[in-house]
Amino acid sequence: MMETLSTSTAFGGTQGVYCHASTATGTDMTFAVYVPPHAPDARLPVLWFLSGLTCTHANVMDKGEYRRACAEHGVILIAPDTSPRGEGVPDDDAYDFGQGAGFYVDATEQPWAANFTMKRYVEDELPALIAAEFPMADMTRQGITGHSMGGHGALTIALRNPDRFRSVSAFAPIVAPLHCPWGEKALTGYLGPDRADWRAYDACALIADGARVADILVDQGEADGFLDEQLKPALLADACAAAGIELTVRMQPGYDHSYNFISTFMPDHVAWHAERLRRA
Amino acid sequence: MMETLSTSTAFGGTQGVYCHASTATGTDMTFAVYVPPHAPDARLPVLWFLSGLTCTHANVMDKGEYRRACAEHGVILIAPDTSPRGEGVPDDDAYDFGQGAGFYVDATEQPWAANFTMKRYVEDELPALIAAEFPMADMTRQGITGHSMGGHGALTIALRNPDRFRSVSAFAPIVAPLHCPWGEKALTGYLGPDRADWRAYDACALIADGARVADILVDQGEADGFLDEQLKPALLADACAAAGIELTVRMQPGYDHSYNFISTFMPDHVAWHAERLRRA
Repeated sequence: MMETLSTSTAFGGTQGVYCHASTATGTDMTFAVYVPPHAPDARLPVLWFLSGLTCTHANVMDKGEYRRACAEHGVILIAPDTSPRGEGVPDDDAYDFGQGAGFYVDATEQPWAANFTMKRYVEDELPALIAAEFPMADMTRQGITGHSMGGHGALTIALRNPDRFRSVSAFAPIVAPLHCPWGEKALTGYLGPDRADWRAYDACALIADGARVADILVDQGEADGFLDEQLKPALLADACAAAGIELTVRMQPGYDHSYNFISTFMPDHVAWHAERLRRA
Repeated sequence: MMETLSTSTAFGGTQGVYCHASTATGTDMTFAVYVPPHAPDARLPVLWFLSGLTCTHANVMDKGEYRRACAEHGVILIAPDTSPRGEGVPDDDAYDFGQGAGFYVDATEQPWAANFTMKRYVEDELPALIAAEFPMADMTRQGITGHSMGGHGALTIALRNPDRFRSVSAFAPIVAPLHCPWGEKALTGYLGPDRADWRAYDACALIADGARVADILVDQGEADGFLDEQLKPALLADACAAAGIELTVRMQPGYDHSYNFISTFMPDHVAWHAERLRRA
């Protein structure tokens, strides 16, 4: 089922890296799980962190600085890869398409459809594996966050599954793939030219089409070089305002698109989710 | 003098990476500096972090999780490289000798003597550059720490220069290069076979020979695979007990030799130094 690649004690808990043969993607998939210190019979809420373009499970594990906050709040953090990888898996020379750029969609176009099924993988297959392999994970209390492309993933997955992901936040998310170069390229490539098929993968379109969550936290660096062309948090603000969704967008002066930005505000996001995932 | 390779806002301060042409090593040397948020006229204490075998300036910058604590305590952190590097610089195929393994000595053996001058570099040249280029750095208040080979560097540099480095700590340090395979290999290679020449580069020997500091903090993981053969904290405990140096060794159950160990206890070390580097 699942192979343990490494475990290491951190902040009183265990940072592990695991691998399994994914039915969804048809490849081996690697992911990271941090389990904080806990009582033997404890059941802990789960926070998903979806990473951005080019990342694997390792980027946030190495640079995200989430373990201290997760240990403090008693939250499990899971970091999947951003796409299937390996020989025999289609790829593209660009950094923003193909391997490392799965965009959290189920591709319908060739040659991507067979492996690029990151929606199914993150929404269904990996949660089922976590439930089976990590008995302390309380899958009735899941939250989701992510960075950039992974912020897009977090927002769209939460909006499509508000009963399963009870809290959502994002770091510098792509809020509207229909209206930015990264999104238009990826969705054209994975889903084909009919933009109606893209709306399930666009947070603003999902909201316009009726999807709802209770509230959203977004941090966005003002010195982020992708802000104006790719990220466009104002589009999310407009969509949430029209829909009555409580959105907090914090513009952070001086911060760029890097893990220095993410790690700085990680404690706030872990606390945001922990508060919403406390047992009722 | 100094070239800025990158800067990025983090925890309200600035994480920078810089490069300069070193006179000591005869090479370009890269280092990282984190300057915490501070008042315009503030003068801040400086903490050096010396890294272990194979590391560059980047390992602790990426994985050390020091910025939050440095911002909280108002401490500048500087992470040098562990050796000269590049074409034309002697090297060895082993991970524990040559480039990435400078051992914080001034080599006397050939072909190492021309470039492997990390003692001079860390003790003299880089502090002078920092003083010139970072006006907020109060060089009368320097502390030093490090990991493994870098813990050896921190201990020996502090013991040789107690007036310049007012606080010292270490993570899983090599405490006695005279009595472990890593140390014997490196000191033989860089200094030659006369073990009397090694004593200035062995914390326990320095203490036996009369060097003193006020107190030392050491954290050591009990699950560290290098503990018994290479690190041997009991030798430092014996040396400090005989010399009347106040040593705190914290054996940490479950922790290995990785940055998961370092990052977990980094806040305690930053606080240890901050307390000792407060303006009198």
